[in-house]
Amino acid sequence: MTVEMHPTRWGDPEAVRPLPDNARGLVEMAFGIDERPAVDQPSLPTPGLAEDLLTGLRDLVGSDHVLVDDDTRRLRTRGKSTPDLLRARAGDLADAPDAVVRPDGHDEVAAVLAWAAEHRIAVTPFGGGTCVTGGLATPSSVRDGYAGLVSLDLVRMKRLLDVDPVSMTATLEPGLRGPEAEALLAEHGLTLGHYPQSFEFASIGGFAATRSSGQASAGYGRFDAMVVGLRAATPAGELRLGTAPATAAGPDLRQLLLGSEGVFGVITSVTVRVRRLPEMTAYAGWRWPSFTEGAAALRTLAQAGLLPTVIRLSDEAETAVNLARPEEIGTTEPGCLMVVGFEGAAAAVAARRDAVTAVLTGLGGTDLGAGPGEAWADGRYRAPYLRDAMLDVGVLVETLETAAFWSRLEDTYVAVKEALEASLAGAMVLCHVSHVYETGASLYFTVAAKEAEDPLAQWDAAKRAASDAMVAAGATITHHHAVGTDHTPWLTDEIGPVGVQVLRAVKASLDPAGILNPGVLIP
Amino acid sequence: MTVEMHPTRWGDPEAVRPLPDNARGLVEMAFGIDERPAVDQPSLPTPGLAEDLLTGLRDLVGSDHVLVDDDTRRLRTRGKSTPDLLRARAGDLADAPDAVVRPDGHDEVAAVLAWAAEHRIAVTPFGGGTCVTGGLATPSSVRDGYAGLVSLDLVRMKRLLDVDPVSMTATLEPGLRGPEAEALLAEHGLTLGHYPQSFEFASIGGFAATRSSGQASAGYGRFDAMVVGLRAATPAGELRLGTAPATAAGPDLRQLLLGSEGVFGVITSVTVRVRRLPEMTAYAGWRWPSFTEGAAALRTLAQAGLLPTVIRLSDEAETAVNLARPEEIGTTEPGCLMVVGFEGAAAAVAARRDAVTAVLTGLGGTDLGAGPGEAWADGRYRAPYLRDAMLDVGVLVETLETAAFWSRLEDTYVAVKEALEASLAGAMVLCHVSHVYETGASLYFTVAAKEAEDPLAQWDAAKRAASDAMVAAGATITHHHAVGTDHTPWLTDEIGPVGVQVLRAVKASLDPAGILNPGVLIP
Repeated sequence: MTVEMHPTRWGDPEAVRPLPDNARGLVEMAFGIDERPAVDQPSLPTPGLAEDLLTGLRDLVGSDHVLVDDDTRRLRTRGKSTPDLLRARAGDLADAPDAVVRPDGHDEVAAVLAWAAEHRIAVTPFGGGTCVTGGLATPSSVRDGYAGLVSLDLVRMKRLLDVDPVSMTATLEPGLRGPEAEALLAEHGLTLGHYPQSFEFASIGGFAATRSSGQASAGYGRFDAMVVGLRAATPAGELRLGTAPATAAGPDLRQLLLGSEGVFGVITSVTVRVRRLPEMTAYAGWRWPSFTEGAAALRTLAQAGLLPTVIRLSDEAETAVNLARPEEIGTTEPGCLMVVGFEGAAAAVAARRDAVTAVLTGLGGTDLGAGPGEAWADGRYRAPYLRDAMLDVGVLVETLETAAFWSRLEDTYVAVKEALEASLAGAMVLCHVSHVYETGASLYFTVAAKEAEDPLAQWDAAKRAASDAMVAAGATITHHHAVGTDHTPWLTDEIGPVGVQVLRAVKASLDPAGILNPGVLIP
Repeated sequence: MTVEMHPTRWGDPEAVRPLPDNARGLVEMAFGIDERPAVDQPSLPTPGLAEDLLTGLRDLVGSDHVLVDDDTRRLRTRGKSTPDLLRARAGDLADAPDAVVRPDGHDEVAAVLAWAAEHRIAVTPFGGGTCVTGGLATPSSVRDGYAGLVSLDLVRMKRLLDVDPVSMTATLEPGLRGPEAEALLAEHGLTLGHYPQSFEFASIGGFAATRSSGQASAGYGRFDAMVVGLRAATPAGELRLGTAPATAAGPDLRQLLLGSEGVFGVITSVTVRVRRLPEMTAYAGWRWPSFTEGAAALRTLAQAGLLPTVIRLSDEAETAVNLARPEEIGTTEPGCLMVVGFEGAAAAVAARRDAVTAVLTGLGGTDLGAGPGEAWADGRYRAPYLRDAMLDVGVLVETLETAAFWSRLEDTYVAVKEALEASLAGAMVLCHVSHVYETGASLYFTVAAKEAEDPLAQWDAAKRAASDAMVAAGATITHHHAVGTDHTPWLTDEIGPVGVQVLRAVKASLDPAGILNPGVLIP
């Protein structure tokens, strides 16, 4: 049985905890405590689909799988960005879908799309519901153009359809959450190795539709690099792509569906490269005198072809906050924490760890041993729960990320940090490099600020400032969280007006009625 | 000064040689000698563009760069597939362009496209002219719909526009041939590491437009994996893509231009990942009892993350033919030759070589030392010259390639080989694996048969049989030679009717007048 996320918070309702005492002390010092209890079960608008429309839908998927009750709709309303949560916490779930439909299999998905196109019903494909960029939040101005909105919930599509242990590929259905997919693969001794922070709740279909990247992507590759084949249901018909590990048979249309965020079609299965379950896992921490020196070490490893499976580097501020436990204040040296992790066959792990250790030592890093690495690994999925607890005491917490080529990385870091600090007076801005490539790296910012009277407007201004700074620095507007509705104002900066025109042309061809996730991705 | 290729043969006219004696002896035994001298300078149709049109074109690029003379047009007629050569050798260059236009820079390319759209002139982008799939051979039935056809020759666009040694990227113009690009990069201690068999003549723009793959792609990556950014001139305007090493800002439109074969736009620069020039290069040969056992060894290396820079494996027939020197007959053992090559820093080469040697030895391979590897490296660009010499004595020689997931590789091999042998009675069909991935590999076939009365029809039948066999086996119709006009009948099998519809939609959006490389890629 799949655990449903809390309707106004991140994650498992059973795992909700108040702010830990040490963090509460820090918050009190930095921002003051301002209790802001959330509405727990916001009320919903009456579902707006006429009974004859619902009957048509029930004929397609069975009456058990067309749901209009408040509980179900509440849990399919928006994603989990801080703005999404702020609105929900304030009791506003006004943009709940009219119905939740749960098709099973490609053909039922296709049938639902045909029904929606016929009746001009907007469709929001829904996997894990973990989106943090508004990709599940159809703007009301857009929604007004439709006869209704349904959430197309992929929760019944959780099969491992095929395993090919010779080719080391597996075909997965889109509704599988990260742990569910890993459990099915583990029965065959295999792993996908895709561990974004949202891993516990995010879905395979979402990984594909948003070009997800995980904490171990240095070793296992980004999700877009893992996909060798996919099948999608579009209003124009079926797309089935991927006949070989590589081909020169024209443009790579898989890469057009990856990152399409449900606006071109619904991905009904993906065939992914898998690896053998690692024999061993080893994490370690390294200290660097500065973020600049740590980043130079990341670059050296990447360009020498020596990346570990996991590699990340916190800046001075994030390092200090992560170490800010009362018993540790004053006992730790300043600097920046790097976490490295190795997974694989024992001999390969040993060889790679030796090579990495030699490079990092040579560059002046200080080996902190396994402790800090294991501490990071233990807490890797917990940050979103902490965000809720911070919101409870009036601290606005949100994250955003970018990526840039190495030669622009430091300028991008400075510009985004300054933009956030200028927009959010008194804010704490933390950053880490979460993904490393030969030609550049990502920057992942966490922001905490005392919540203003209108936190939505407060965050909107900060987000605009940060996005403008990214564009001005020549960096990307999102490294692994997709465009959603939040990033659409900057997509033209990213891919140019002709690029946007291409997306519109593909959209018009595959979804001529414009029913799929309207308002998302395409400006 | 760029050496122009021979108009009816491969490569440098100065390098043309008759069939070597030992090969001639083998041909005589296998097929008999049937001298078929080629027409050296076929005559051309009168160029069909009216003077006022040419004047308009001259205004855009300068009168020195609009050429209608026979010599220039002859060298821009079609590519270098065996069918292209057979027609040229028979004196047929009927589909020569009306003019050759040589714009310099993005803006001039854009201006030429606007001129062509206004006057409904078909445009064939021309880089190295090495295409082997008919991508430069506009079908006459298609051409009839246009007021003329110009070859858009990128020969003046040969600059290294930018080097970023921190990010390890370089921005190259499309007209640079392989050796020219490498020479410019070498001044900075850098290399692209892209060495297709056509390396000496093929261009950067062509690598991008056809998703080229090189002999060292196991180490350096396919060309599509190297491209981090690109700029293209389309009739709808400029496309400029690539702000970061990775992004989640929607579909990857770079991957839509890569492999687009000039039908969406003309790539006017690419920004590619580069590497440091290798400190050392080491090649070696290994013998395997059978193709199956050799292929299993390739798979083991790929799935263990232990690929060398170069890796290839000939089947029994190709191994035997390659070794068939009179002095060696009877002295060599049967089996299959594998070539492995390592490039990079000395320590990295040594470490990787040790690891690969351990795996190959453990799997039962026989280390043949450096000799066979170096012999392969010495002759790596010579096969196309040999093809001409074989055509001179009445032997039809052509190559084709596919790729498949490992679990389908052997069936694909058998099916394509049988299809070729059944279609071409008495043919010699040789094969090697030229590219290896975690999930599968490519198969590259070389076919030699006694030329029939109508060799074009003879090859057409064989090509159809082979392509049908690939599709039936679930393999791709082309691993690294693009679709051109030759593969269009099978593209719908490869990407489905909805995939083709997407390509048409993009085409209609970017090139509404349909002037760019008509008849190519899109069925």
